[in-house]
Amino acid sequence: MTFRAPVADIAFALKHAAGLGPAIAEGIYGDLTEDVVDAVLAEAGRFATEVLAPLNRAGDQVGAKFKDGAVTTPPGWRDAYRSWAAGGWNALAAPEEWGGQNLPHALNAACIELWNSANMAFGIGPVLTMGAIDAFAAHGSDELKRTYMPKLVSGEWMGTMQMTEPQAGSDVGALRTKAERAPDGTYRITGQKIFITYGEHDLTDNIVHFILARLPDAPAGTRGISLFLVPKFLLKPDGTPGERNDARAHSIEHKLGIHGSPTCTMVYGDHGGATGYLVGEEHRGMACMFTMMNRARLSVGLQGVGIAERATQQALAYARERRQGRVHQSQTVSSPIIDFPDVKRMLLTMRGLTRAARAICYATGVAIDRSHRDTNDTTRTAASERAALLTPIAKAFSTDVGCEVASLGIQVHGGMGFIEETGAAQHYRDARIAAIYEGTNGIQAIDLVTRKLPLSGGAAVESYVDELKRTVATVKAANDPHFGTTAACLTDAIASLERATAFLMSPAAKGNAALAGATPYLRLFATAAGGAYLAEEALAAGRHAEDGSAPARVALARYFAENIAVQALGLERGVIAGAESINGSAAALA
Amino acid sequence: MTFRAPVADIAFALKHAAGLGPAIAEGIYGDLTEDVVDAVLAEAGRFATEVLAPLNRAGDQVGAKFKDGAVTTPPGWRDAYRSWAAGGWNALAAPEEWGGQNLPHALNAACIELWNSANMAFGIGPVLTMGAIDAFAAHGSDELKRTYMPKLVSGEWMGTMQMTEPQAGSDVGALRTKAERAPDGTYRITGQKIFITYGEHDLTDNIVHFILARLPDAPAGTRGISLFLVPKFLLKPDGTPGERNDARAHSIEHKLGIHGSPTCTMVYGDHGGATGYLVGEEHRGMACMFTMMNRARLSVGLQGVGIAERATQQALAYARERRQGRVHQSQTVSSPIIDFPDVKRMLLTMRGLTRAARAICYATGVAIDRSHRDTNDTTRTAASERAALLTPIAKAFSTDVGCEVASLGIQVHGGMGFIEETGAAQHYRDARIAAIYEGTNGIQAIDLVTRKLPLSGGAAVESYVDELKRTVATVKAANDPHFGTTAACLTDAIASLERATAFLMSPAAKGNAALAGATPYLRLFATAAGGAYLAEEALAAGRHAEDGSAPARVALARYFAENIAVQALGLERGVIAGAESINGSAAALA
Repeated sequence: MTFRAPVADIAFALKHAAGLGPAIAEGIYGDLTEDVVDAVLAEAGRFATEVLAPLNRAGDQVGAKFKDGAVTTPPGWRDAYRSWAAGGWNALAAPEEWGGQNLPHALNAACIELWNSANMAFGIGPVLTMGAIDAFAAHGSDELKRTYMPKLVSGEWMGTMQMTEPQAGSDVGALRTKAERAPDGTYRITGQKIFITYGEHDLTDNIVHFILARLPDAPAGTRGISLFLVPKFLLKPDGTPGERNDARAHSIEHKLGIHGSPTCTMVYGDHGGATGYLVGEEHRGMACMFTMMNRARLSVGLQGVGIAERATQQALAYARERRQGRVHQSQTVSSPIIDFPDVKRMLLTMRGLTRAARAICYATGVAIDRSHRDTNDTTRTAASERAALLTPIAKAFSTDVGCEVASLGIQVHGGMGFIEETGAAQHYRDARIAAIYEGTNGIQAIDLVTRKLPLSGGAAVESYVDELKRTVATVKAANDPHFGTTAACLTDAIASLERATAFLMSPAAKGNAALAGATPYLRLFATAAGGAYLAEEALAAGRHAEDGSAPARVALARYFAENIAVQALGLERGVIAGAESINGSAAALA
Repeated sequence: MTFRAPVADIAFALKHAAGLGPAIAEGIYGDLTEDVVDAVLAEAGRFATEVLAPLNRAGDQVGAKFKDGAVTTPPGWRDAYRSWAAGGWNALAAPEEWGGQNLPHALNAACIELWNSANMAFGIGPVLTMGAIDAFAAHGSDELKRTYMPKLVSGEWMGTMQMTEPQAGSDVGALRTKAERAPDGTYRITGQKIFITYGEHDLTDNIVHFILARLPDAPAGTRGISLFLVPKFLLKPDGTPGERNDARAHSIEHKLGIHGSPTCTMVYGDHGGATGYLVGEEHRGMACMFTMMNRARLSVGLQGVGIAERATQQALAYARERRQGRVHQSQTVSSPIIDFPDVKRMLLTMRGLTRAARAICYATGVAIDRSHRDTNDTTRTAASERAALLTPIAKAFSTDVGCEVASLGIQVHGGMGFIEETGAAQHYRDARIAAIYEGTNGIQAIDLVTRKLPLSGGAAVESYVDELKRTVATVKAANDPHFGTTAACLTDAIASLERATAFLMSPAAKGNAALAGATPYLRLFATAAGGAYLAEEALAAGRHAEDGSAPARVALARYFAENIAVQALGLERGVIAGAESINGSAAALA
């Protein structure tokens, strides 16, 4: 199955749903034009389609190989990575100061979707390097940045993020990896990390590990964690890789999916400790890591979108080609299965969820850009809060969508979907990790409810919901019969969202009550938002008649509103009932 | 991870939710007692736990192997199968006339769940043999039955069901395998079948294929299909396997899951045609196959229940053991993750969906028994319609639940869930096929809406819904605060079910409108029914205080009603909106 980068759809979502168009028009991005955005997307689409997508199957079948401490990536990956980096893709949104192109994060988000849609096991590597760049740029010392940043930005070296240890997964504060101060101002790192994505590989000549560890005098928990840069190879005075650091991969995991991505157990300090360099201040590592994680969370959400897009393309192609039975008994030839209403329902669900998740992710990207670039302080702060609010939704909803859509993709294929050769099953396997790593989706929901809803006393969520309402009011005012009951369904969904939000912010929902309702609340939020974004795209298509996509977008917005957004009421009830029905449920799980 | 057969839960569901208790009390099963049921379940549980479950992992890792036309099952499977058959398990519900034990189909359903919970790739083999026995008993000639039935019933030989061909999947009528009449009254079969489960293997000394094929003068479509019995080895005059028939396996598939189950491409007629024996009448093969399929559909539903049960057990065990963070900041040690509300939500969803699906499947089994055994003609007919009504729901809902619960099982494990060693991923992979084979879940939904709702002019569904309402009325009358808003939530769900049913049976929903709403309708039906069954179990536990499970069952019924059954309203809207929003959506999928 050939992947084709959905460049036109992506550009449309960026400009018209996520707000990149208005942001460009306002001058947020200096002299950037929509034409440049289109050109970058076209080129990224070409690279994803022509170079990365063809390597996806071998990545799954051959996988990353581990032998004697070294990892070999699948056939063709090293060349692909090098030409990807040479194309400047790693540097797209990175600071100009370090060789980056300073293009919008929103545009980079679209590109990240493309890399991961084409080849998720490949795409996750750069995602981590980009997250590391963000954290490092914000917190690293000038000297350290001068040494490492140009290589990380160009992609000549890749970065890793190392938090997890056997006893410290969601509870990062439980980590035990030790850092000791050395007389020369560096540190000696000893310990073990697990589940380290691209912890070892052959794509680049050096690997720059970003490792959380604990100093001997550190307070307990997350307040006693520091971040260190630990290169695989220490640098010679000329800045090129020299002696091997006291760091090695011990093994790689045998995983359900993303076989091409080496997931390593890393060992530090076989010979007294790996040399590490402090990033930021001692004991303040979590703050740095949050910078990295927030960006990585959006990227993982984009993996969900990417897999969903690819699964949808594949299912659509199959459904157009595969013929079974006749839709109307009067037909003399059998019908392509796409003509059957139940198959249509699956495909519309796939497309609707994918585009809703995409719009949410891109909107997060635009908010990130505004939070850095807007000239108005108030707007910047509001954008920063918007990005913070949307990030857990972008991550969790999109990755849930990735799994659900990949599963529907199998279903559309019938028995063929269960045969590995078809490729539908790989998406289903690959997609599954995205709902787990970079903070499980449950953690995202709790982050949304406990940290994000209270932002500015609730003003952040309120202003967002107001925007959704404005979209719905416009749909209603359009009075277009093709929208069916879209406006009514979205109005109900948003009302559910408002009631659930009010409940979660009320004293009644303190503590466990909020935690018990977090997951359905996040889904409710995403469902209302996604419905509004699809409607926004439909309205925009109507305004840009030359685009020609209005009938399709209106039909999709309607399907989503009438069939998916209507789940809002049930979700609302689950949020509000969660408190008692879950917290009093101990007996049921005994 | 050790599987433990949930014998007590199964017995409880059989007796108190599915209606086996009352049926026994009424004397439907002659002198069968609940004690016998308990004893059979205990023994089945032991076999599943001690013999089948330990072979599940090797089945996945080694898988079935194909070489030179022969299939080798995974290590230990042949011995396990032989002791399983020797234990009389294959013969449990089979007719006494042929060596069967004539025990309830409902009890056999519980056992089928156990075999598949312990080892789904193993369990699917006997499921097909049992389906073949049913069809063969109903439609085979006495002579043919005398020859083959004792061996099939004892399990000495296994059976297969062969419908699918490359161009004939859901559209069985498109099959091309040819049958020609031979002068001796037998037939010569030539053609190719694909996706044949256990089409070739080494578990038994002979394999009895049941094959759909088309005679030269057959009408087109499903009205021109005949069913043939084609043994792998023709029989010698003494009834033992003799000369090899002109039938062979060409290859086996590389699948996402159930690796231990060989999925074969079968070829007939390399040397002029395989010798086949007609089962039933010429051109009436579909009627025979429906007998087989209906039973197999319930069994596949039970595979969904079995996988869901196993995934739930594994997730619960992990959640009790794995410690991360602290639920209350005042704690000095970390908490098992089961104490966190969001993890509880996942586990309650897993347990609730599993038990709801189980009750639906067992109720189907009791209805099948009643349809055969009740002395009252009207009751038998009503039971037959009840079984027909519930079968597509048992199949589709339970297998969707299998996938959803297995996915939640991975999520509860966090990163460990994505590592194959943990075993959670195998359930996720194995479960996926059950939503596809024996009629995709979309086909089940269409069957429900187009063939089952009209039974007795709608009286079949109406009387079922009345039973659900009686349960809810009892919950309401119980006035137990621990039920929370269970009665109200289920009342709403059943009201949605009634409105959706009325819509689907109205002239407004003729044709595509009904087809477009079929899938959410089936889910709506199952959600309302499942909620009522869990409530019924909770009420029964209250009546049998010695059981001690009342607090747990009430809590689970409440969780389900307040968090899952509340999806009913959204599903209802999807059913009713489906017509226009899907059938007018062509542009959105262009």
